[in-house]
Amino acid sequence: MDNHVYAILGGDKRQGCLASLLAAEGNTVFAAGFDKMPQIAAGAVHANALTAAAMADVVILPVMPTSDGAVLSAEFSTEAIPLDEQLCKSLRHAKVFTGFAERITGISRRYSELNVGDYSRREEFLIKNAQITAEAALMLAVEHMPGALYESRCLITGYGRIGKALAPLLRATGASVAVAARKPEDFARIAAAGLRGVEYSRLTAEAHLCDLVVNTADALVLGEAFIRNMNPDAVIIDLASRPGGTDFEAAKSCGITALHALGLPGKYAPRTAARIIMDTVTEMMEEEHS
Amino acid sequence: MDNHVYAILGGDKRQGCLASLLAAEGNTVFAAGFDKMPQIAAGAVHANALTAAAMADVVILPVMPTSDGAVLSAEFSTEAIPLDEQLCKSLRHAKVFTGFAERITGISRRYSELNVGDYSRREEFLIKNAQITAEAALMLAVEHMPGALYESRCLITGYGRIGKALAPLLRATGASVAVAARKPEDFARIAAAGLRGVEYSRLTAEAHLCDLVVNTADALVLGEAFIRNMNPDAVIIDLASRPGGTDFEAAKSCGITALHALGLPGKYAPRTAARIIMDTVTEMMEEEHS
Amino acid sequence: MDNHVYAILGGDKRQGCLASLLAAEGNTVFAAGFDKMPQIAAGAVHANALTAAAMADVVILPVMPTSDGAVLSAEFSTEAIPLDEQLCKSLRHAKVFTGFAERITGISRRYSELNVGDYSRREEFLIKNAQITAEAALMLAVEHMPGALYESRCLITGYGRIGKALAPLLRATGASVAVAARKPEDFARIAAAGLRGVEYSRLTAEAHLCDLVVNTADALVLGEAFIRNMNPDAVIIDLASRPGGTDFEAAKSCGITALHALGLPGKYAPRTAARIIMDTVTEMMEEEHS
Amino acid sequence: MDNHVYAILGGDKRQGCLASLLAAEGNTVFAAGFDKMPQIAAGAVHANALTAAAMADVVILPVMPTSDGAVLSAEFSTEAIPLDEQLCKSLRHAKVFTGFAERITGISRRYSELNVGDYSRREEFLIKNAQITAEAALMLAVEHMPGALYESRCLITGYGRIGKALAPLLRATGASVAVAARKPEDFARIAAAGLRGVEYSRLTAEAHLCDLVVNTADALVLGEAFIRNMNPDAVIIDLASRPGGTDFEAAKSCGITALHALGLPGKYAPRTAARIIMDTVTEMMEEEHS
Repeated sequence: MDNHVYAILGGDKRQGCLASLLAAEGNTVFAAGFDKMPQIAAGAVHANALTAAAMADVVILPVMPTSDGAVLSAEFSTEAIPLDEQLCKSLRHAKVFTGFAERITGISRRYSELNVGDYSRREEFLIKNAQITAEAALMLAVEHMPGALYESRCLITGYGRIGKALAPLLRATGASVAVAARKPEDFARIAAAGLRGVEYSRLTAEAHLCDLVVNTADALVLGEAFIRNMNPDAVIIDLASRPGGTDFEAAKSCGITALHALGLPGKYAPRTAARIIMDTVTEMMEEEHS
Repeated sequence: MDNHVYAILGGDKRQGCLASLLAAEGNTVFAAGFDKMPQIAAGAVHANALTAAAMADVVILPVMPTSDGAVLSAEFSTEAIPLDEQLCKSLRHAKVFTGFAERITGISRRYSELNVGDYSRREEFLIKNAQITAEAALMLAVEHMPGALYESRCLITGYGRIGKALAPLLRATGASVAVAARKPEDFARIAAAGLRGVEYSRLTAEAHLCDLVVNTADALVLGEAFIRNMNPDAVIIDLASRPGGTDFEAAKSCGITALHALGLPGKYAPRTAARIIMDTVTEMMEEEHS
Repeated sequence: MDNHVYAILGGDKRQGCLASLLAAEGNTVFAAGFDKMPQIAAGAVHANALTAAAMADVVILPVMPTSDGAVLSAEFSTEAIPLDEQLCKSLRHAKVFTGFAERITGISRRYSELNVGDYSRREEFLIKNAQITAEAALMLAVEHMPGALYESRCLITGYGRIGKALAPLLRATGASVAVAARKPEDFARIAAAGLRGVEYSRLTAEAHLCDLVVNTADALVLGEAFIRNMNPDAVIIDLASRPGGTDFEAAKSCGITALHALGLPGKYAPRTAARIIMDTVTEMMEEEHS
Repeated sequence: MDNHVYAILGGDKRQGCLASLLAAEGNTVFAAGFDKMPQIAAGAVHANALTAAAMADVVILPVMPTSDGAVLSAEFSTEAIPLDEQLCKSLRHAKVFTGFAERITGISRRYSELNVGDYSRREEFLIKNAQITAEAALMLAVEHMPGALYESRCLITGYGRIGKALAPLLRATGASVAVAARKPEDFARIAAAGLRGVEYSRLTAEAHLCDLVVNTADALVLGEAFIRNMNPDAVIIDLASRPGGTDFEAAKSCGITALHALGLPGKYAPRTAARIIMDTVTEMMEEEHS
């Protein structure tokens, strides 16, 4: 990763940490979009987006680079940073790394011609973020449950990366942990990990047995019938991206605490989350040159 | 635990939960000292302390029944409840369970003649509370550390009940965990648990290796020299009772985040903490009658 | 799995257990190739292979159905069971389940026209067998290492299903566990699991640090240079299929204990191994009919 | 541990390893009682017991130094080594470390006047040996159970050092683990560890639920009624010292596999078992001189 000039354009705390980390490793780093809180990108040269992009040979955009296709996600920028033709032009000579690349390449034909790499699709990025997300979910569970985790009964819906990371953490507290899954091989993995597998068809019937439900599946798995059958003191933590897998209206009307917890890595472990982006981008650059 | 009339006098959320739990089990329960938030002792008959004590054959006082020997600890009481002769008299015909019993029996000769049992000295009470405390410490670590626990280096000072409960939780996150201890048998236990043992004499030299330090020892183990040698991003969580084992002044001047986290079971798992008191008191009553 | 007539042809202890399990579930089961030890297929009707195949609508062959393409694997058969045209004919009206199906379908054009399903390629079969294999590897480690696992340093080469199952078992003993892997996402998983990742290029340099080496990779990863650098008391357990990943000659000449441990599920947990085949075949039949 | 001359008198493989370890650390070591297999005490000077004792200032006897009070335990000695007055005399000027010291001091008044330290009563010795014993018990379970541990139901009777060491190992395999105990604080520890507590009064009623029973209690807890109610494929591993806690006759008549497994550290991890003695003796010597 030697001999590069980086530009970090926009983002949240983790992007700020990323700028600092890259600078601490001896790189020249330009940061744009941090004028509200320049210290979170300490060590970087603060500049506007056009200048930063023009100076850099490697540009790193946020995990979710834009929500509307018009302006860059930039939590700490006083002014909107338009994803316009001018910015596109200044990105043309750089290697651009971003999350959800289709958000960038889909803006216009010009943007689709940029040299873009998507770090958010990389397995190592996803696995490490799942691990941090699991830690943060554990934290939220301790914070919001009226009882302790040990001796509690937990249910995880979905057994993808986050479910696999969370289950052993919950089990380590002494909780008994059930996991709802679909595929036979997932039931095999669940049993081998000392967890109890639950068919989705049986979910509603088991709702009253749970003190904690953590959803990781991208589908409406915690519907009204499930929620009506829950113990009123139980807590739902929904980690699925919008709109989540919970009928939040039903939860509200039943008095069930239901949190929709998103973006946990950037909120609760920005430094590690930044290093994960740095490591992933480094790996991608090394692969490109080997 | 049948055929008893209980009085819960004073306390915090967990004492309120305890009143509710006992009532939910079909007991008659009088609660005094919850007029600011009667709903946290739902199910109990609210009364003043003298009446409640007079009606009950089993009285349960808070874990820390008084801080000054003059009035009862009662977070949700609008008026102070004096530990005077009148209250003493109305406690005379009851079995009184309390934490830190010497605080009660030490008030006066009259108080020393009450029939007092101390639930806070019971091993099962201590072990279960240590487990909840460990869960809450884990939560605080995730909340306050800038990085993730997995891949972090944690140090626990002291290997009593809380250290023993916390170490496997931290290790389950993937962190590497060291424990400072004194006794050869503790080093044996530490090694057998896959942890690294550290001599206290080596603590300061290792300070810079830690991302998280959790103190559980009742002595000033995290002194100025240790703190000056810490990584500035590291976090201290001190679980030892006042004054704690940390030089908080030094931490402040070095910019180290240092939390003195006390009373965690009552704060983060009041319901479980209440059940622990209930179970312990029940066990003590059964032993008395067997 | 109702209303089927099964034939279990050949195999070892686990195939015998499979016959018993299917019979215990109320099925009619014919077993061929167990005349040396008929009791291990208790509950089945013993018959010769042709009759058994002709009677059954579901035929189950061993995990490794033949080693030479000419005769069926049948450890407990006094006579060889030829995989000839006659047997093929009697299999024609049945659904045939086997491991390593290409061994059967590759015998001749006639065999390739049978209705064959391969249970050994199913993910749930592989995961559960990996779990049993890991248990058995742990057993062999305790049996053969001169020291205890706790406080020992273990190295696993390869992080596929078996590596993933074995690593947490070893870590639970208190051992420190390193894993050699190649892919960035595997290093992410390894770190998240609290293990130490090792690049293959560094293996030889680390050889002297290991008390136990378990190979799970299908390549010669434990070559002569590695072995020459090992601690003479260290133990190698090689779980890779023939020829294994160890230079066994070098191990011998260096006095290193090196076990090539194959077929562990059938040897050390035949009953569970049988149930895994039964469950997998059941699942395959259900999928076919849904 | 500098500047000492050691004598290792009698014992089994672990005592031989102990002699080698002490020699490898640069000490002068005399070994007596290894003439059948001198290589297991490699590095030591082989001598007869009287000479060895006379030369040494530190003498180490076996964990169980004698079974009859007349001769020394010495598995690899061709001739019996009498614990007579002559040996006593040559031990007089040494510090004698032994297990079960009362076996030595109880021989005669002369023996009671020796300067004897008992390493087998030291907590760190007991904890580390419990850990090795747990590893070996796990090995025996995998070896003797017809099914796998994962998905099995295990019962541990007794929750002392060995029970506490074994429970997490079994749980790590994915097994569900119950523990029979008596004290309320043990039930607290059991719940906090994610295990299921069982009252002894309920043992017999639960016998049929177990695939593996490991006894660690020094009392007849696995009696005839329990055994008659067991699943015939279940396995008992009894770790309690003679006569054990199992009705072995009943087990035999019911066809239940029941192993009385004693002396596991010396059998399965002699090197670690030797180092434990060395470390414990070193610690005792340091304490004496500080």
